[in-house]
Amino acid sequence: MSKHFLAFLLFSLISFSFQGQELPISSVSEDEVALDEIFKKCLSSSSVYPWLGEMCLEIGPRLSGSPQAEQAVDYSYDLMKNLGLNPEKQPVMVPHWVRGEPEKAEVTFTDGKTHQLHILSLGGSISTPEGGLTADIVEVNDWDELEQLGEKEVKGKVVFFNEAMNAENLYTFHSYGHCVKHRWGGAVEASKYGAVGAIVRSLSLRLDTFPHTGSMTYENAIDTLPAAAISTMDAELISEKLSAGESAKITWSQHCKTFDEVLSHNVIGEIKGKTHPEKIILLGGHLDSWDVGHGAHDDGAGVMQSLAVLELLQELNYEPNYTIRVVFFMNEENGLRGATEYARLAEQEGLEHVACIESDRGGFTPRGFYAEGNPTLVQRIIDLKPLLEKYGVHQLQEGGSGADIKLLQTDENVLIGFVPDSQRYFDHHHSANDTFDQVNKRELELGVGSITALVYMLDKYGLESK
Amino acid sequence: MSKHFLAFLLFSLISFSFQGQELPISSVSEDEVALDEIFKKCLSSSSVYPWLGEMCLEIGPRLSGSPQAEQAVDYSYDLMKNLGLNPEKQPVMVPHWVRGEPEKAEVTFTDGKTHQLHILSLGGSISTPEGGLTADIVEVNDWDELEQLGEKEVKGKVVFFNEAMNAENLYTFHSYGHCVKHRWGGAVEASKYGAVGAIVRSLSLRLDTFPHTGSMTYENAIDTLPAAAISTMDAELISEKLSAGESAKITWSQHCKTFDEVLSHNVIGEIKGKTHPEKIILLGGHLDSWDVGHGAHDDGAGVMQSLAVLELLQELNYEPNYTIRVVFFMNEENGLRGATEYARLAEQEGLEHVACIESDRGGFTPRGFYAEGNPTLVQRIIDLKPLLEKYGVHQLQEGGSGADIKLLQTDENVLIGFVPDSQRYFDHHHSANDTFDQVNKRELELGVGSITALVYMLDKYGLESK
Repeated sequence: MSKHFLAFLLFSLISFSFQGQELPISSVSEDEVALDEIFKKCLSSSSVYPWLGEMCLEIGPRLSGSPQAEQAVDYSYDLMKNLGLNPEKQPVMVPHWVRGEPEKAEVTFTDGKTHQLHILSLGGSISTPEGGLTADIVEVNDWDELEQLGEKEVKGKVVFFNEAMNAENLYTFHSYGHCVKHRWGGAVEASKYGAVGAIVRSLSLRLDTFPHTGSMTYENAIDTLPAAAISTMDAELISEKLSAGESAKITWSQHCKTFDEVLSHNVIGEIKGKTHPEKIILLGGHLDSWDVGHGAHDDGAGVMQSLAVLELLQELNYEPNYTIRVVFFMNEENGLRGATEYARLAEQEGLEHVACIESDRGGFTPRGFYAEGNPTLVQRIIDLKPLLEKYGVHQLQEGGSGADIKLLQTDENVLIGFVPDSQRYFDHHHSANDTFDQVNKRELELGVGSITALVYMLDKYGLESK
Repeated sequence: MSKHFLAFLLFSLISFSFQGQELPISSVSEDEVALDEIFKKCLSSSSVYPWLGEMCLEIGPRLSGSPQAEQAVDYSYDLMKNLGLNPEKQPVMVPHWVRGEPEKAEVTFTDGKTHQLHILSLGGSISTPEGGLTADIVEVNDWDELEQLGEKEVKGKVVFFNEAMNAENLYTFHSYGHCVKHRWGGAVEASKYGAVGAIVRSLSLRLDTFPHTGSMTYENAIDTLPAAAISTMDAELISEKLSAGESAKITWSQHCKTFDEVLSHNVIGEIKGKTHPEKIILLGGHLDSWDVGHGAHDDGAGVMQSLAVLELLQELNYEPNYTIRVVFFMNEENGLRGATEYARLAEQEGLEHVACIESDRGGFTPRGFYAEGNPTLVQRIIDLKPLLEKYGVHQLQEGGSGADIKLLQTDENVLIGFVPDSQRYFDHHHSANDTFDQVNKRELELGVGSITALVYMLDKYGLESK
């Protein structure tokens, strides 16, 4: 603990006694005083909101391989440099897929009426054939229904995967996890039965007109098909018409293209630890985003929160025992190349990551942390609940951490996912609605406070797993 | 417990065992099964969102005394009637203040440049003098600064109360509570020193262009002054210019008028209790709102959530032991007449309210409940924490309940305030930004689930205070 921070703690304790708090002074622990200060400071002096705003509004979305992604690399590097974090750009080759223009579709029903669809090609999709594609739509909810229809009902048609996210789950990611296979693998499955295209209901719990893109895949030896997402309201309309016995014919054109891979970068900065400089507490998220909206919640929020934790530790004059490293991973969305390359080099260099914390679930009001890995350390995080829950951080439990840090798992370390409230996440995720104005400043800042509080406690009380 | 509900519980238990849950069946309590079902149903079949939407979009804001307030009374009565709640309109006289048009102000600085202010008269204010008002602005942060300036510096000027809400408080209502005195009493204090008007910085934690209105007061024997709120960005601009040594002259006109009181109504419905029909668990919020925006969060959300709890209990075929009564109070914003009249009649009729739950803190994601009153019952609510926190309802603590139910407090009963996340509340409160589109459907629904869960537990385990 630095002398500045100690002086601040002493001052805080004195202030407490002068202000005539109800609690006797001895019951206000040093930790509580420190955490109170962390949460006050995150709400009053963090740069996380202007940083995110600048990246969203001046650079915009940052799909891997795009010029904007590299602008974001440079912008991030400069932020880290200004904070004195000795930044590094770690080279990594990434995919380069481009949506192309125009991208449009309409559907014509039995009565001849047409309806313009709100559509977005899925990431990685091929384009429609020259001149576009016109075909009947056949609706299914899952693989089983597709199999039951078989080639007879599917061949030459566009398969419409219409499984809605389950509204009944409190934690919306559970509903996402159940449906995402249709977006990821729908084109492959549809192709097996001779379909000419696949459209999926957007993965959102809201009824609106925003289509939500995301990654999809092809398999060798299976014919490739164009694939796209349509808005939930469009999905409802088509489904209603089909249920009423009408036919629905789609006229659809998209102009996606996959280019050669290009060079991109992870961006890394750190504060060296004074006691265990060789042991790393890693904080991070992904710098890339999809190519619509601003990538504000996914995952501009997460990278800027991670960086803002280091800013806040500096402001508190806190000198960490462990090295606190921030990593802005490139290409989480469509390749995970940044995380893979980071992990490869970390192993090659024998880096020791004692804890990794990922923020990639949006910039919403904090709820807690999910921890996985070494049981002793997982339990140590769960045990922080009594201290953290007064700040709204009450869900400290075993659970999945995050895609970018998962490859860093060892028997000795702990991987942690920051868990904000999930209710609004899929209103924005992968859509043109993921914009900076949809991020609440205080909710974003409280994420910084929550992660800083966790890092402070882990750093102070140590991360020995035995 | 009705046989339908029992059948559902049994079915649920069987389903649990069939689905191979990790927990042994004996550890899944009947309560947990019931609460799981409550939260599922609130997210999948509640009418709360369409009800709120209809009231906001088809009626709009509902200031006491306005035709819209009475339309909302009729709309609410019809909703309760359709649910079979045997509704009643309880007459009450309410104030009738009208903002008037046009309402505008601009400020001119030393260099002659003018800036249009985003301004809203405060509720209850008088109008500016015929032809408007032009005067120098003098800025203060609080009563002390005003006193120090004294009549010499204040006479003939417009006093600008610029205290900003404290961003450092996690719970935003604490910051509101500290500043609201300037809005409420600023005109009286400024008048004591000969000012000709009072403007206040809007009570919002965001920097934006929305002015936020709210109630103010006059005192007998103190000259009345016009009073208004300006947006936080306008407040920052004026303050910066004054700090830089410039003068700021306001040219301001507003046309408010107070008319004779008019007849309005509380709206009341209920499900009779089967064991203690004479004992009431009251749920409510206020039907009136300010006259800008939609009054969506304040407090359309609260009344529709309260009603939706009864709808959900009906859907579950749950037959309550106590009478579950919903009250839509009229005139919370500028008079509290509905609550006062309800309490007067309740006392006159000897009604026994064993618990009252108010929802008037916005339709945001639930955090918990504050309880006050009989210590045994307060503790019983706090003791529900282990059961409720898995649904995100983790803040069960002693605290203030709500303005509309406060008059119903006795030594034997408990008053409860529903506490959603407070971060975004003052972005909307009393402003044109309190619109239906700013309410997230799931967050609103989870409030219904949370209150229903509490009512279910209180009703089932009883509310004897000894």
